[in-house]
Amino acid sequence: MAKGLPLRSENYSEWYNELVKKADLAENSDVRGCMIIKPYGFAIWEKMQRALDDMFKETGHSNAYFPLFIPKSYLSKEASHVDGFAKECAVITHYRLKNDENGNGVVVDPEAKLEEELIVRPTSETAIWNSYKNWIQSYRDLPILINQWANVVRWEMRTRIFLRTTEFLWQEGHTAHATKKEAVAETSMMLDVYEKFAHEWMALPVVKGRKTANERFAGANDTLCIEALMQDGKALQAGTSHFLGQNFAKAFDVKFQTKEGKLEYVWGTSWGVSTRLMGALVMAHSDDLGLVLPPKLAPIQVVIVPIYKNDEQLDQITELIQPMINELKANGVSVKFDISDQRPGWKFAEYELKGVPVRVAVGMRDLEKGLIEVARRDDLSKEQKTLEGASAYITALLEEIQEAIYTKALNFKTENTYEVNSWEEFEEKLEKGGFLSAHWDGSSETEDKIKELTKATIRCIPLDAKKEDGKCILTGNPSSKRVLFAKAY
Amino acid sequence: MAKGLPLRSENYSEWYNELVKKADLAENSDVRGCMIIKPYGFAIWEKMQRALDDMFKETGHSNAYFPLFIPKSYLSKEASHVDGFAKECAVITHYRLKNDENGNGVVVDPEAKLEEELIVRPTSETAIWNSYKNWIQSYRDLPILINQWANVVRWEMRTRIFLRTTEFLWQEGHTAHATKKEAVAETSMMLDVYEKFAHEWMALPVVKGRKTANERFAGANDTLCIEALMQDGKALQAGTSHFLGQNFAKAFDVKFQTKEGKLEYVWGTSWGVSTRLMGALVMAHSDDLGLVLPPKLAPIQVVIVPIYKNDEQLDQITELIQPMINELKANGVSVKFDISDQRPGWKFAEYELKGVPVRVAVGMRDLEKGLIEVARRDDLSKEQKTLEGASAYITALLEEIQEAIYTKALNFKTENTYEVNSWEEFEEKLEKGGFLSAHWDGSSETEDKIKELTKATIRCIPLDAKKEDGKCILTGNPSSKRVLFAKAY
Repeated sequence: MAKGLPLRSENYSEWYNELVKKADLAENSDVRGCMIIKPYGFAIWEKMQRALDDMFKETGHSNAYFPLFIPKSYLSKEASHVDGFAKECAVITHYRLKNDENGNGVVVDPEAKLEEELIVRPTSETAIWNSYKNWIQSYRDLPILINQWANVVRWEMRTRIFLRTTEFLWQEGHTAHATKKEAVAETSMMLDVYEKFAHEWMALPVVKGRKTANERFAGANDTLCIEALMQDGKALQAGTSHFLGQNFAKAFDVKFQTKEGKLEYVWGTSWGVSTRLMGALVMAHSDDLGLVLPPKLAPIQVVIVPIYKNDEQLDQITELIQPMINELKANGVSVKFDISDQRPGWKFAEYELKGVPVRVAVGMRDLEKGLIEVARRDDLSKEQKTLEGASAYITALLEEIQEAIYTKALNFKTENTYEVNSWEEFEEKLEKGGFLSAHWDGSSETEDKIKELTKATIRCIPLDAKKEDGKCILTGNPSSKRVLFAKAY
Repeated sequence: MAKGLPLRSENYSEWYNELVKKADLAENSDVRGCMIIKPYGFAIWEKMQRALDDMFKETGHSNAYFPLFIPKSYLSKEASHVDGFAKECAVITHYRLKNDENGNGVVVDPEAKLEEELIVRPTSETAIWNSYKNWIQSYRDLPILINQWANVVRWEMRTRIFLRTTEFLWQEGHTAHATKKEAVAETSMMLDVYEKFAHEWMALPVVKGRKTANERFAGANDTLCIEALMQDGKALQAGTSHFLGQNFAKAFDVKFQTKEGKLEYVWGTSWGVSTRLMGALVMAHSDDLGLVLPPKLAPIQVVIVPIYKNDEQLDQITELIQPMINELKANGVSVKFDISDQRPGWKFAEYELKGVPVRVAVGMRDLEKGLIEVARRDDLSKEQKTLEGASAYITALLEEIQEAIYTKALNFKTENTYEVNSWEEFEEKLEKGGFLSAHWDGSSETEDKIKELTKATIRCIPLDAKKEDGKCILTGNPSSKRVLFAKAY
């Protein structure tokens, strides 16, 4: 137990909340459900952003920026969209405050009422398709491949730091295509981008799948998703990619002239990931001592803690260790040499809490023998290594740790994914948590009933699900493939 | 005149508006005063962001993120701050819409009224100092050096794309220090960062100065600024850095224990630049043919236009030119080889409009002789060059163009800065535009009177102003240094 962190086994939920706070990732603000992302947390988010942004650009997308505010009437143009978002949106009604004549301080100026209320964007389909109407005339204008990094607001009743906050940061891709085929291909290409990012950067194994009609994005014909498994056996939706069909094109009258001179509606997609990924990162890998960060997302990859009795010793250590620091930096490794006046033991605990992947401890006696101590955060192992060659060793070790964290999470997911074939088995396994692969009869009613009985939802119909005849675990009705159930964040 | 662009000399204002639109930088949205930044414009902003962010990090700052919403009561805690911002803020009063029972579509749900209204941040001092209260206990917690990239909203009555918009993107630095001396040093260091960025990246010469009390940030003790001159002779404030004294520390009760064990208020600064810089960039350098972009901020630095009669010729050109393209890319130059089916003349005009710094035209006949045509966007000069060595030549040329654009703007500023010594001279020169260096008696009344009479404001008291006895141009009262007047955006 580190620095007053609860144990995962005793109270997973508190462990998460406390860890996010104590590791200086983020904290709740005075504004209900809104968070403050602190510098250490934001540095991780910046690395996520940079990696994703590079991947978006490699796949042909450009960034742009659309307004924060959406006129109320826009929201209503796509019927299922307004149903999905109207119940939880922040509404601007006035544009000025004034000093109250009765001495109540600053109050809303009733004379500054907006003619039409504005909504703080919960997502930008409506604002963007309203622009696409003007941008698209002919097939030559297509495809449009745009992404936006932005803040969005959804007035959630129950909030949870990073996982479900009133305001969150995200990216939202919005593309427009001449053909259904292209739009469908874009939807699945972006799902692949998300899977690759989750795997290679977050060390997070995910299941690619399709949402059931019940769980689809409000306004989409098809929602693809990546689902991850947290250490408490609950699932977490980590990213979605929506095939919008021609729904928004029709709602905003976006037509284009085809090569053959015909006028047709445009096909659309949208896709997004958010600061929720920060929550997934914490929940997937961290332990009772604190964060475990995959090296590729760690703001500090290597921390060097000198152990010394006086300034003279510190100077000697610094001189001996400096070439290694320079070599690591030249290798693109981010290194912190912590010469603050805290005790080594305090520093060890602090960097364990912060999830720094590699800790190097250097004491005078060892250094005189040309030795240093290298400790891994992920498995807590320690080894003595020679100073000579240390930078190459540590650089390679970072890659090894990245792999090891992924492998551990993958094993966890494999071990906690169960094929269940009866209702009894379903209930029994659900108790333990994990992904339950089970037959379902395909009806929304059955899905609702299972949710009502057990709180488990269909996370997705895995894209790689094989055809297999079976019987729905609840109704016994025929089913042709298994879907993935879990309790979820 | 390019693609229907008005001439600067005939209608500078329309020229600007049309250029921003036609060059695909940005456009107005349906939401009053809010803009849509299009991919080409956003690519420039991203380059600005990256360069500034690197400079902020080099000077020890970290990024963080604070909530979009500010409780109404926070705004009121610093008296002059609320006076400055209450009159122009977007107010959230409700958190839900519902279907109207009388069939009026979606309406605000009166039952979802917030207990306390929320303001969309016009700037984040209040939200941030409210957090600093919890983050700062001792001198060990100082300094705090934080920056935030964010959107902010100010309900401006008159808006102008990029220059003054209801919502804009910016960065806001917010630092907290143990001593006045440190905070003052931070304020001026960040002004230097802004000047360096304006000079080295935007090719924009600026005057560093201090705002008069009238023009200070609402809540600051001292506001430093960089002021630039646009081609129409109007000034544009391009960035500000505020010394906040202990004002926000007092308003939010932020004290710290000194090394000596005393309890003292913290000293603060804040500093920001915004998408307004995009407007400055356009207005400072561009011409009647379109944008002129400094190479360091140009999304496309070199465009290659092949001139060919058939696909076979295009293949030959491609083969011959490919090594040059590869070399340019290896030099870090962003290159576009435009093989679209538009005519070369159309492409020439298009890339002139878009401000691409270097255009290379390659035709079969020239290429057979080993020659290409290299055209500069800034001075519209063209030269034949050998293909051999072209990549090195063009790489160097980009640096030369960056310098040349700066020098041209610097000369313009020098030629349009006048020392004036009488009211007649002041009025006469003001007619022409430019910076007027004149004596002022130091009183806010005189400043107001001059503004009322001429619309000219004191842009700043230049930091390098020499002591010089003189008489105020309006009142004849004694003055000890000249200040800079201009009409401004």
